[in-house]
Amino acid sequence: MKNRVDIQSQTDLRKITIDKVGVKNVRYPIIVEDRARGTQHTVADLDIYVQLPHDHRGTHMSRFLEVLNRFHQENFIPNLQEFLQATKLALKAEAAYTTIKFPYFMEKKAPVSGIASLQAYNCIFEASLDNNFQLIIGVEVPVTSLCPCSREISDFGAHNQRSIISLKVRFHDFIWLEELIEMVEDTASSQIYPLLKRVDEKFVTEQAYKNPAFVEDIVRELTLKLMQDNRITDFQVEAENLESIHSHNAYASVSRSKDETNG
Amino acid sequence: MKNRVDIQSQTDLRKITIDKVGVKNVRYPIIVEDRARGTQHTVADLDIYVQLPHDHRGTHMSRFLEVLNRFHQENFIPNLQEFLQATKLALKAEAAYTTIKFPYFMEKKAPVSGIASLQAYNCIFEASLDNNFQLIIGVEVPVTSLCPCSREISDFGAHNQRSIISLKVRFHDFIWLEELIEMVEDTASSQIYPLLKRVDEKFVTEQAYKNPAFVEDIVRELTLKLMQDNRITDFQVEAENLESIHSHNAYASVSRSKDETNG
Amino acid sequence: MKNRVDIQSQTDLRKITIDKVGVKNVRYPIIVEDRARGTQHTVADLDIYVQLPHDHRGTHMSRFLEVLNRFHQENFIPNLQEFLQATKLALKAEAAYTTIKFPYFMEKKAPVSGIASLQAYNCIFEASLDNNFQLIIGVEVPVTSLCPCSREISDFGAHNQRSIISLKVRFHDFIWLEELIEMVEDTASSQIYPLLKRVDEKFVTEQAYKNPAFVEDIVRELTLKLMQDNRITDFQVEAENLESIHSHNAYASVSRSKDETNG
Amino acid sequence: MKNRVDIQSQTDLRKITIDKVGVKNVRYPIIVEDRARGTQHTVADLDIYVQLPHDHRGTHMSRFLEVLNRFHQENFIPNLQEFLQATKLALKAEAAYTTIKFPYFMEKKAPVSGIASLQAYNCIFEASLDNNFQLIIGVEVPVTSLCPCSREISDFGAHNQRSIISLKVRFHDFIWLEELIEMVEDTASSQIYPLLKRVDEKFVTEQAYKNPAFVEDIVRELTLKLMQDNRITDFQVEAENLESIHSHNAYASVSRSKDETNG
Repeated sequence: MKNRVDIQSQTDLRKITIDKVGVKNVRYPIIVEDRARGTQHTVADLDIYVQLPHDHRGTHMSRFLEVLNRFHQENFIPNLQEFLQATKLALKAEAAYTTIKFPYFMEKKAPVSGIASLQAYNCIFEASLDNNFQLIIGVEVPVTSLCPCSREISDFGAHNQRSIISLKVRFHDFIWLEELIEMVEDTASSQIYPLLKRVDEKFVTEQAYKNPAFVEDIVRELTLKLMQDNRITDFQVEAENLESIHSHNAYASVSRSKDETNG
Repeated sequence: MKNRVDIQSQTDLRKITIDKVGVKNVRYPIIVEDRARGTQHTVADLDIYVQLPHDHRGTHMSRFLEVLNRFHQENFIPNLQEFLQATKLALKAEAAYTTIKFPYFMEKKAPVSGIASLQAYNCIFEASLDNNFQLIIGVEVPVTSLCPCSREISDFGAHNQRSIISLKVRFHDFIWLEELIEMVEDTASSQIYPLLKRVDEKFVTEQAYKNPAFVEDIVRELTLKLMQDNRITDFQVEAENLESIHSHNAYASVSRSKDETNG
Repeated sequence: MKNRVDIQSQTDLRKITIDKVGVKNVRYPIIVEDRARGTQHTVADLDIYVQLPHDHRGTHMSRFLEVLNRFHQENFIPNLQEFLQATKLALKAEAAYTTIKFPYFMEKKAPVSGIASLQAYNCIFEASLDNNFQLIIGVEVPVTSLCPCSREISDFGAHNQRSIISLKVRFHDFIWLEELIEMVEDTASSQIYPLLKRVDEKFVTEQAYKNPAFVEDIVRELTLKLMQDNRITDFQVEAENLESIHSHNAYASVSRSKDETNG
Repeated sequence: MKNRVDIQSQTDLRKITIDKVGVKNVRYPIIVEDRARGTQHTVADLDIYVQLPHDHRGTHMSRFLEVLNRFHQENFIPNLQEFLQATKLALKAEAAYTTIKFPYFMEKKAPVSGIASLQAYNCIFEASLDNNFQLIIGVEVPVTSLCPCSREISDFGAHNQRSIISLKVRFHDFIWLEELIEMVEDTASSQIYPLLKRVDEKFVTEQAYKNPAFVEDIVRELTLKLMQDNRITDFQVEAENLESIHSHNAYASVSRSKDETNG
């Protein structure tokens, strides 16, 4: 192979910087910090990109995996900035990006019986490094929402459903995924649980009925909390109800930067 | 290309008949019979396969599309047996198969206000032809289910959720998709609707509360109806609740052939 | 129901404007303009949102569907601005948004045999109306990409694969979806086709081998064309290779606004 | 709650046994045996069902989770029969079923450079217990397939693509997932790898070109191997090519029971 051209290293004359180039949907086992248990093992889907300078024909895709393997499971998540720095160096790039999606497990105790079991939450880390390191962390939290209108107008009952509340934050002081999850769960009509005995089911049913909330209410209550948390600088909240009375979903979203005026 | 070998037409010596070979996930516009409006346009995902005799090296993938194009939108669904016969001939096969998945739209009137709008249902046709032509038709129907246990044990309210009820039938006398859909909708705690005004929302909320049903109840009620419908020879019923109090689903299924003893 | 409170119409004191609130994943049959045939029927997934003023407790979800039904299939896509204006009015909102995803079919002729068949493309319209109407249109185009590096270093063959090229544009003069699709198809190693006879398969195989392209090359070539098309004011290009030699994908993206300096 | 009825425990008079009832899409961390490293941590999606006798109104959904929690991560996969036995007891059922889907990681060494990295494979266990315990294990293996026809008719190059080969087996002597994966990988035009340097990419490109295979060839070669492996009693093989020259897939499947005559 000595005389073969290294195509990726050719000079490119089209004068077009590529915003992001790299590998997508790399499945990889990771180890994540766990507030209760120290660490937990899970499995991630990774996207890893760099910015490609206008005069480089191509990036070297294999190097993304080489850098990842160097950090490996134990050292990957705790060292995202170093990982992106190493990626920048290996790819000779001005900026590097990674998005890491994974299920995260928390033990939840049923509200009356106290029986514990594991609840999965889809989480996300979005990290970038040019001159500055930036990190956004996010959680998707399944909850129960009960419709205030349905409760008001009906002689008995009220439609309710599984809702998925998504929260992404940028912050300047450390925040646990668990804190974000709990912030969301406290905002819904009721939390959900993997395991509910009869006494628990009675509790969550009545709890939801006593706390009706539209998607609008959920995103507003979360916004109030997030505005008050000084660790958080920017956030996006989305609520999506898998409506029990429709086959389409109800949706609401609010994004804020703490600099912005609100309202 | 004169001297090039026709690889697919080579003789195969491995003595292995291939059960199914062909094209998968072909997206195609189709026209379906509509009880209310004569016909409707929709879009299908098609799988089309043949059985490949043990002594043929390969099938000719392009011929599946040629046959499909010959039938085209107007003549495809009304002539499934002829389509499979033509596929068998074109591919020199003993058996041909097709699976056709598509959204089907029915106008639904809100239960009190009477306002009409379009509800989509995922439908499926599974057709095969060896010496005999066989056709299975199926519908996926979103409904509301309300938990009998939650209602019984709670002082107010009851958890409820969107459920997806799937029904597939084999039959000897013609059945409309609309009939299958209505059979399912009548079995749930409440039908769902694309558009509900306040009077309608009150109605469906109270209706669901008055008709609690487990997934077990839904599949059993449907089974009773299907056993009594003499046009139907075999069926499969599945109910899946997107539980509002859990992030996992509740599921039940029953399959019966009319020859079988039941129970 | 006379004495029941209209909860959605209550005054909200939390002083939080909701960016977007409405209905998501509404499935609806639509009719789209077709350069070759006038119009075509297809099926869309719709999201429809409004901005909710800070002093309104909730939006009225049923009105989204009422407005949609008023426009109905025939008048929906040709009148997106009027549709959003009607939505703003019905919901008493300052801004309205819709995203419309649908498969769009074009007849493609095989390159040598000339046999025609239908190719599906996932398309998208993103429309918004506050004081100004804005529209982004997008296409997802499956193509073949053949790796320049693999070709250079190998004594024979070169790995190639299905790639999905996504293009979204904002524009000030009308552009057909067909034009965007053709622009993308001309940029790949080879176009793909639903139906290829042997002479066609020889053609596309050799064509791809003669036109190797990295994801980087594809997004750059498209960027050059889009920069030169004066109708287009902003664009985003993404290329994603379903790599035949990996289970992860290769990805590149470029976004540009015509005001920006490029490179 | 003392006077409330236990609805699930009511007697049912409809005389309809429910084939399967239980929980679906339970996400759960698991520990799986690993030929190279002893064990590995991963994350599963679980369905757990029982058969419900005709005279029972409902099953007790919470007990499925209670049994799962009793086995927990460490003791779940190694004790599937005991798990199903405990499920039968807890639910007073004649039969219990579980389906367990999870990504499984194997270290793969690039074919020339020898650089190791982790490849994910979707795996499945399908276990049932009535009077007998039955277990089916399955793997989904991404490989490269190169089209024999395209190679034969073209002056240079040949279209190739990522293929997904699925294999499920029933067996009477222990088989590692790794053995099934290797059996599949040896059958394709080329294996795929997470990380390939230039020397490796040359190798796999040329390897694929030297080993063209239709989906038909892949399922037949696998069938021959599976027929000869005396540990295996039944199997199903599926091959699906993400065709690089089409947007639809090519598919072939073979199922055999060792009792059956073959061909």
